[in-house]
Formats: sequence, C-alpha cells, structure tokens
Amino acid sequence: MRMRNKPWALDYLSAVPQVIFSPSDLKGQWKQRLNVQELHVEIGSGKGDYCLKMASMYPDSGWIAIERDKNVSTVALKKVNEKLPENMLWIVGEASLLEEWFAQGEIDVLHLNFSDPWPKSGHYKRRLTSPEFVPGYLRLLSETGKLKIKTDNKILFEYTLVELNGYPLIMDDVSVDFRRSPHPDDAISEYEQKFMDLEQPIYRCVWRKKHETQ
Amino acid sequence: MRMRNKPWALDYLSAVPQVIFSPSDLKGQWKQRLNVQELHVEIGSGKGDYCLKMASMYPDSGWIAIERDKNVSTVALKKVNEKLPENMLWIVGEASLLEEWFAQGEIDVLHLNFSDPWPKSGHYKRRLTSPEFVPGYLRLLSETGKLKIKTDNKILFEYTLVELNGYPLIMDDVSVDFRRSPHPDDAISEYEQKFMDLEQPIYRCVWRKKHETQ
Repeated sequence: MRMRNKPWALDYLSAVPQVIFSPSDLKGQWKQRLNVQELHVEIGSGKGDYCLKMASMYPDSGWIAIERDKNVSTVALKKVNEKLPENMLWIVGEASLLEEWFAQGEIDVLHLNFSDPWPKSGHYKRRLTSPEFVPGYLRLLSETGKLKIKTDNKILFEYTLVELNGYPLIMDDVSVDFRRSPHPDDAISEYEQKFMDLEQPIYRCVWRKKHETQ
Repeated sequence: MRMRNKPWALDYLSAVPQVIFSPSDLKGQWKQRLNVQELHVEIGSGKGDYCLKMASMYPDSGWIAIERDKNVSTVALKKVNEKLPENMLWIVGEASLLEEWFAQGEIDVLHLNFSDPWPKSGHYKRRLTSPEFVPGYLRLLSETGKLKIKTDNKILFEYTLVELNGYPLIMDDVSVDFRRSPHPDDAISEYEQKFMDLEQPIYRCVWRKKHETQ
C-alpha cells in the first residue's frame, strides 16, 4: 500500500505510547508486556483494520501489528484516536528484522493478510512467503504455532502453497473461497470486504508446525 | 455420471478388443502390452474425452482409462467407433480394485479429473482422494510417479489438498484457476469446457512421490 508522504508521520507516531520504536528491547518479553499467554503477530497490517478488530474480538490474546510504511501506519492510529486496544501494540518496521524483535518460539500465531504479491517472477524473493522469510517464521513460532495466510491474489496463493510444502509444516486447513460460508471467528477488514463486494474469492490457508515425532 | 441403463452395454463392450475385462491378467505387463515406457492411468474417465485426447497427443505413452459405469463407457467407445488410439486401453471397473490390476510401481502418472466430489461429509470415504484410496496409489506409482488432480469442485479440492498433505508426496504445482493461462499440453474435455464457458475456475494440483532421502 503506497500513500503520499506525510512529513509529520514520524513525529506523530513517536508520540503514541503503543507504537513501539525499539522492538528489540521487548524481545522475549512481549507476552509479559501485554500480560497474555498467547501472542499473535500480523505482518503487513496496512491500515490496521484486521488486527484492530481481532484484538477487540480476542482481548485475552496479545496482538502485534507490523507495518513498514509510516504513512499508512498513521491512518491506523488516527482511526482509533491514538489508542489501540490494551492488548495490542504497533511496530513500524521491516519484516526482515522480525528475528531481531522476537525470540525463538515467542509467537503463537503469525498472520499474513493480503500481502503484496510481488507478481513479477524476478521479485519473488520479496514475497512474505519466500525462502527469505519462512525459515525465520519457523524459528519464531512456538511448538504449537500456526501460520495463517489470506489473500485475494492467485499467484501469491499458488506460490505459497507450493513453497510452504517444502517445510516441516502441516496444512491444517485450506480454502479457495473462504467467504462462501460465514467465519465469524475471523475479522473482515475493509480491504477484504472490497474483494467480497466484487464477488472475488478469498484464498486462505493455515499451517501448523510439524514435530519430529509426526 | 449417471445414465439410463443400456441392457446391451456389456455385450457391446465385450466385443471391443481394447476393452479389458480381466485386467488382473495384465498386472505388471501393461507397458509391455502397449509397447510403451510410460504408463498413464485415469480413474473415472466418464465419456473418455480427456484420456482419448491425451492418448492422441502423447502417442509414445500408454493410457489406461478406468470407468466403473458400463453405460457411460459405451458412450466413449461409440464415439471412436470401437477403436481407441493404439496406445490406449479401457477398463470397466471399480477403482477399489486398482491394486488387483496393477503391480507396485507400474503406474507413472495417475490422473483424477472431475471426480465425484461426494460432498456430504458422511460420504468422504468414497472420494477418490480419501485414505481408502491414496495409500494404494502410492504403492502403484513408480519412483518418479506423479498424481494429477483437476476439478471444478471447491470442497473436493480443499479436502484433497489437506488430505494429501499427510502423505510422502511433494506438491509440484498447484493452480486455483488453471485455465486463466493456456496449457496446450493438457487436453480440455467437453466436461471441463462447460465450466470454462461458465467462467468457473478449474482447480488443479500435481504431486510427486517423496523419497526417503528428500
């Protein structure tokens, strides 16, 4: 998601207590900080709709939104008058730094929603499900950790299914038209709703870590 | 595919040399019989369109069509005036008998096209990708063997992706809209064309056997 540059964005964000500028300081301590047993992390939160709704729906879990774009991040924070749900924090930064910020096994559920598909084949390494990122996710996920992916993009979905097939992950659930039946447990962001209004299918897959004994 | 009973079907089929009534007699000898190095088997061939076209497109491979319904089988045989391509044979019988007819490792590519989805959950064991069938497929596939599945049915496709995830198979390729780009290497049956005319997506997945060392 690209947006016109807002020169005031960094000043604005740095004044919000729930926006974390030194996430590595909290490495290994996120659950303690949020006083939760279960930690969800969304990479590429955009305007924050999904993570905000889910944090409200699941107040007993911790929710961390990560968004690389400071301008887009301001939209999310303005929407809630600079006050995220108590069980939520916001990181402005690059997913490539994830292992600097989180300890091994610290994340229980990792969410990728409508990630940039980088459709040109030369750019596939930038996809959030490329080998550049996935081994790190596996290290960060807890023993019972899950990876949940939702997208409208066929190329990204197909790439992801084949790519993740090569890791010690078990596909728990897959849907080629997730919204054809109601899923009240999973929030619909404004972005997702646009595709639903156009009657475009939403693709979704959930994996869990495979253990040595399985 | 159900069809009005044709009392003459068995008599008709038994007069066609390329219709095999005792397939277990050829167990382990199909390639020899067809004088080919590579054996393709389609389970649930219906009116035979796919297998007939593929056998013509790939004359150096052997193609075996299997269809349980004798009435439907007559439609295929009548279409070609009782003369299949030389590299093709037709079996009228149940997929559950596959291991009676083929030897371990004898099949190079197993095709399931638009199989009956058996959408009721109580009937899932009848799906051709259920645990009732898959272990047998794995025994019959050669070391470099592949399993190719195409369907218009979301429930069957999703079920199959999750189910096959539990076997020593590697997902080589997957598509949630196979015909959005041309695939001249893969024949389009009349049945498939109907869904394409309705702009309904065709789902497709290809697996290969995983070896101990992988």
